[in-house]
Amino acid sequence: MEIAASLPKGFQTAGVHCGIKPDAELLDLALFVSDSPCIAAGVFTQNRVCGAPVQLSRDRVPSDSIRAVVINSGNANTCTGERGLRDARQMTERLANQIGCEDESVLVCSTGVIGHFLPIETILSGIEQASTQLGRADSNLLNSARGMMTTDTVPKLAMREVALGGATARVTGVCKGAAMIAPNMATMLAVIMADAALTTDQADKALRHAVDESFNCISVEGHTSTSDTVLLLANGESGDKSLNEVDFDAIQTAIDEVALELAKSIVADAEGADHTITINVTGAPNREQAQRMARAVANDVLVKTAIAGCDPNWGRIVSCLGRLGIELDERDITLQINDVTIFERGNPVEYDETSLSQQMRAERNVSIDLLLALGDGTARFWTSDLTMEYVRLNSEYTT
Amino acid sequence: MEIAASLPKGFQTAGVHCGIKPDAELLDLALFVSDSPCIAAGVFTQNRVCGAPVQLSRDRVPSDSIRAVVINSGNANTCTGERGLRDARQMTERLANQIGCEDESVLVCSTGVIGHFLPIETILSGIEQASTQLGRADSNLLNSARGMMTTDTVPKLAMREVALGGATARVTGVCKGAAMIAPNMATMLAVIMADAALTTDQADKALRHAVDESFNCISVEGHTSTSDTVLLLANGESGDKSLNEVDFDAIQTAIDEVALELAKSIVADAEGADHTITINVTGAPNREQAQRMARAVANDVLVKTAIAGCDPNWGRIVSCLGRLGIELDERDITLQINDVTIFERGNPVEYDETSLSQQMRAERNVSIDLLLALGDGTARFWTSDLTMEYVRLNSEYTT
Repeated sequence: MEIAASLPKGFQTAGVHCGIKPDAELLDLALFVSDSPCIAAGVFTQNRVCGAPVQLSRDRVPSDSIRAVVINSGNANTCTGERGLRDARQMTERLANQIGCEDESVLVCSTGVIGHFLPIETILSGIEQASTQLGRADSNLLNSARGMMTTDTVPKLAMREVALGGATARVTGVCKGAAMIAPNMATMLAVIMADAALTTDQADKALRHAVDESFNCISVEGHTSTSDTVLLLANGESGDKSLNEVDFDAIQTAIDEVALELAKSIVADAEGADHTITINVTGAPNREQAQRMARAVANDVLVKTAIAGCDPNWGRIVSCLGRLGIELDERDITLQINDVTIFERGNPVEYDETSLSQQMRAERNVSIDLLLALGDGTARFWTSDLTMEYVRLNSEYTT
Repeated sequence: MEIAASLPKGFQTAGVHCGIKPDAELLDLALFVSDSPCIAAGVFTQNRVCGAPVQLSRDRVPSDSIRAVVINSGNANTCTGERGLRDARQMTERLANQIGCEDESVLVCSTGVIGHFLPIETILSGIEQASTQLGRADSNLLNSARGMMTTDTVPKLAMREVALGGATARVTGVCKGAAMIAPNMATMLAVIMADAALTTDQADKALRHAVDESFNCISVEGHTSTSDTVLLLANGESGDKSLNEVDFDAIQTAIDEVALELAKSIVADAEGADHTITINVTGAPNREQAQRMARAVANDVLVKTAIAGCDPNWGRIVSCLGRLGIELDERDITLQINDVTIFERGNPVEYDETSLSQQMRAERNVSIDLLLALGDGTARFWTSDLTMEYVRLNSEYTT
């Protein structure tokens, strides 16, 4: 496989099969290690029921001394009580021993089935094995992306380079997706590595901005998982010193773009989906209401089934906007699907429905544009359609 | 078909095929007429995009002089602008002419496809034709229930009788369900007739109480339609005079039970569903949070697909509770499916999963009991599962 991403300076990664997943072909452990301490920030699931690794890692960021992240797939270490916390801590201890740092300088994520204890000895041996394979080759990066996959069909990577005061900084991200099989919880994990020199505050601000415009603007089934985690590690190895405002804007843009590309790759790989749907709202009373509108359309089962059927069903979409309690009526709404206006200021428009439907059938991407004239609020959201195959995959009885 | 419901005193109904639906076997118009003026109350969709009949009827209740309700199926008269309002008004005028009352004494509902003008001449002729068929026979009642059906597979009726100070009062309700086919909007309509003597305030209070515990506790896909309407008409013909507190409680209970039986019949007839799911929450911090929890589980796509697959997937259910921002963690949660404890105070429990799954496969009803120990808030919610057949029906391209 050809990949269009390489590691930033000073980072090494590895991905191995350690034995959590039964199929020896599937990687189930990934390491991300920086040669020097990193400024690190994290954004974690808001779900009150959250995995032990979330509880542990959340306490360790923001930080100016993170050296590494260890991720296992195949078991989420969630609803596992005190033993789960102990297991998560042991994973960070073992990697800390291998690379020579404090336990607290290692972060941990787990994804997979919930309610089962980790096969901790298997994982600890795996961490030792993977530590010997750390490297900077593109194959190392690709294997680390593979090591975090659950039902993803492809590893997901993105990279941007940006000139910062003479030096070139690189931002490289990997993630795994929102696809899920019972009783896995649709977990989304991402690690974004940068060799720029951010302060702790800058890293935290930059990551929150990027997540708000990317991972927080996608959904597959609207269910916040118990393990969602996005981490940013910046080691300053690119040689740039402290960033001026222009530099910070440039690195922010690079982080935003990496996060957005990763987020879109999750939607594109959603389980059983036939279409990726982009929802654009413009002219809402304000940003927050625009986001609520876009999210409501994205999470609506009736809209998602209509798109699966290549049915440009304006009624379901318009009705979504009406049920949010936002002050508007149908005369405020104009709707385009794939740039064809099908509903204009309260009235359905005559258009070639057969041709639009055929176009939807032929193409994977569908755009839904909601054009209001109530203010300057805009929002964009990405989701997938709801197909019979999605239901089959998510209702398959596995025992 | 045998039905277990008859009309209260002083009411007549009719149901006919007037020509909105192409199939002449399918009834598409229903009349509900009281010999004398009724106290009437209504609860309507909160969707800001709502049909012309909702706008018209909403302005006419509460009232002490309602004589009749006219309902057509096959066309929802929604997103039809000024002409839609004119058409709705004409329907009430024509029925008022037929039965001899003020236009304002007639209410109107429409359900079906949205964004199309009504075939108004067809409907007005239908109203005249149906007026000649008004009667009190059980077949009249059954036909009126049929006249409001869209994709319902069975007419839906319920009745209760209650002794009020020497006289027997009767409460009889009919409804049509939340099933939907593009671009119909999952509309729920109900008409509840009573021959008790309620005041306007009592009727309004009784209906809101009943709706809050019934139609507001069901969902098929969590989408509020543009036409949802529940009407209560009470004509006082049973002979009871003004109600004392005990009498009011008795009639409230009867209305509650009729509404609940109708609401459950909607869930039981949900399109493409294999299971009816009852969600019981007890021990929540308060009533409002109990309702939010029950609703979140009921509307969760992952829970609904798991039940379709007869998979007792505690992870998806527990995670629903965690993502509501309510102060709790997994150790506060105990979960039973069909009375089998599968998750207890934060830990998955050993149980016979194969046997439970087989039982779920064999039975239409599934109960999900969430037992918390955070307070005395309780709530009950009914929903259906999400099957491949549901998606097929809702994504079928119809042109």
